[in-house]
Amino acid sequence: MPELRKDPIVDRWVIIATERWKRPSDFQVSRELPGRGSLCPFCPGNEALTPQEVLAYRPEAGRANGPGWTLRVVPNKFPALQIEGVLNREGVGMFDKMNGVGAHEVIIESPDHKMTLSAMSEKVFENTFWAYRDRILDLKKDGRFRYILIFKNHGVEAGASLEHTHSQLIALPIIPSQVLDELNGSREHFAEKERCIYCDILKQEISDGARVVCENGDFACIAPFAPRFPFEVWVLPKAHASNFEETQKSHFESLARIFSEVLRRLDRALNTPPYNFILHTAPLRDKADEYHHWHFEIMPKLTEVAGFERGSGFYINPTPPEEAAKFLREVDL
Amino acid sequence: MPELRKDPIVDRWVIIATERWKRPSDFQVSRELPGRGSLCPFCPGNEALTPQEVLAYRPEAGRANGPGWTLRVVPNKFPALQIEGVLNREGVGMFDKMNGVGAHEVIIESPDHKMTLSAMSEKVFENTFWAYRDRILDLKKDGRFRYILIFKNHGVEAGASLEHTHSQLIALPIIPSQVLDELNGSREHFAEKERCIYCDILKQEISDGARVVCENGDFACIAPFAPRFPFEVWVLPKAHASNFEETQKSHFESLARIFSEVLRRLDRALNTPPYNFILHTAPLRDKADEYHHWHFEIMPKLTEVAGFERGSGFYINPTPPEEAAKFLREVDL
Repeated sequence: MPELRKDPIVDRWVIIATERWKRPSDFQVSRELPGRGSLCPFCPGNEALTPQEVLAYRPEAGRANGPGWTLRVVPNKFPALQIEGVLNREGVGMFDKMNGVGAHEVIIESPDHKMTLSAMSEKVFENTFWAYRDRILDLKKDGRFRYILIFKNHGVEAGASLEHTHSQLIALPIIPSQVLDELNGSREHFAEKERCIYCDILKQEISDGARVVCENGDFACIAPFAPRFPFEVWVLPKAHASNFEETQKSHFESLARIFSEVLRRLDRALNTPPYNFILHTAPLRDKADEYHHWHFEIMPKLTEVAGFERGSGFYINPTPPEEAAKFLREVDL
Repeated sequence: MPELRKDPIVDRWVIIATERWKRPSDFQVSRELPGRGSLCPFCPGNEALTPQEVLAYRPEAGRANGPGWTLRVVPNKFPALQIEGVLNREGVGMFDKMNGVGAHEVIIESPDHKMTLSAMSEKVFENTFWAYRDRILDLKKDGRFRYILIFKNHGVEAGASLEHTHSQLIALPIIPSQVLDELNGSREHFAEKERCIYCDILKQEISDGARVVCENGDFACIAPFAPRFPFEVWVLPKAHASNFEETQKSHFESLARIFSEVLRRLDRALNTPPYNFILHTAPLRDKADEYHHWHFEIMPKLTEVAGFERGSGFYINPTPPEEAAKFLREVDL
């Protein structure tokens, strides 16, 4: 079973795959994704190649694990964590670990193998966000989990291993370190000022305008003041909201609209770059509704992995966010 | 001038290049290093292609910026920070920034273009560590700097942009976030137990043995309990020491010996992988001598950049450190 282990110095949890572990010879890097010739487990008709679905949207009624879906969620066939078992916490001398209990799911956003998310209709985005919400609400019932990470790797350089468009969900019994840093930072700000730090940032950004990429009535997309990566952008709800899964029904449409626009702007400006996006929402059990503000972070993968940055947490960004935002604003759609 | 900007939520400083900024079309990724055909600015005879040297070891006396050196340190021709100017701190609404004052230097570890560090004699390593020390001692006198980052990117996949072997040094007016996390974590441990957390870890690791790669009288190389990356290893002095630049003369030889051995073991086990290493030493002005313990972190670059890990700080490591250490221990040298 995989293990969750904590670094005792910086309190950072990592997943260690203790079973099917990679030997040195397994690290041959392939720069190509399995092509259209090979059988795609995410295509309609190949449902039997994935584990049994946990969610699917079928506009016309149809049987589970058959075709006819517009969106489908299945457990990852090679999960980083294992869904069965009780959470077992253990000390090993001065170290802490627990068994790797968690959910690892794949959200297949569309039956269409050849499409990228940015080329799809806003309806596909809306479906995708509904699926994120439905899965969070379902997994939230499981008392073992404290956090749900939802993310997308697009393009092999950004870590995608299958061509057919999909996002991923990992439900964890711990809170990832960067999310924890955010929670701590925003809690401190609230303790001092009785205000959400993201609301303060949004107010300043929208009035200043230089780092705004686009906005609509409910959402804004900004390039953050101190971005780690060139053309990193965030999408945030304008009204304070800590939990993504509590998003109002009417907001899914405007979220789909802005998200689709942002991806198309990135595609145009950067020639369809590989990218990652990740949802930062509040933890499942820790009450953070006053001070945390959910948002998506979208990070194009433009530079080779920033060598020493892996070992220092210190980033050198060659593109000022004001220039990135201006470029993205002015691109022809 | 470049700028240092702080993310107000997680207090992470980044460098933003505000002058020669990269436009979208500049992000064409090249997977090849300039080859041996092109003129190498780090080769003997080409000294005029670099800025004036700040340090060089010449066993036979010779003039500065001419050949005859075994190791040479020069300012980076395309520095991430600028050495001139007073430190100017400024608030921009709720944001904080300062001008990008700092040193960015290149340590050319050997005049031999064709050699990699791991193939070189222990004497080259020893020279390299002496140069790190000499540069830290010199830059420490500059009251504007609070931290010195020393690191090496080996191989294009790990971020190297020139083939000729070299390390880099960045002197900063701030402390990088991961180093700050380490300092905070080790200070808390000391406050609670009156002991250095690294000394505690070393004691447990050496008595347990499963994660020890190799050791000598003065140093140990271990795979950490919760590594972020497959085959990540750390080299630490066995006796408590917070500041690298205060290393005793006699220890440079044993450090060179173990470091050379570790790189050769990684080369053998992983077929000369790209890697980064980074020195974590105490800050220049904050007194950390009781609780911080300097060390090198060596991270082979074996997996494609861990997509969502960039946005969560959450790592999935496919190789247990016990297996990595065993493999590295048992490799034929």
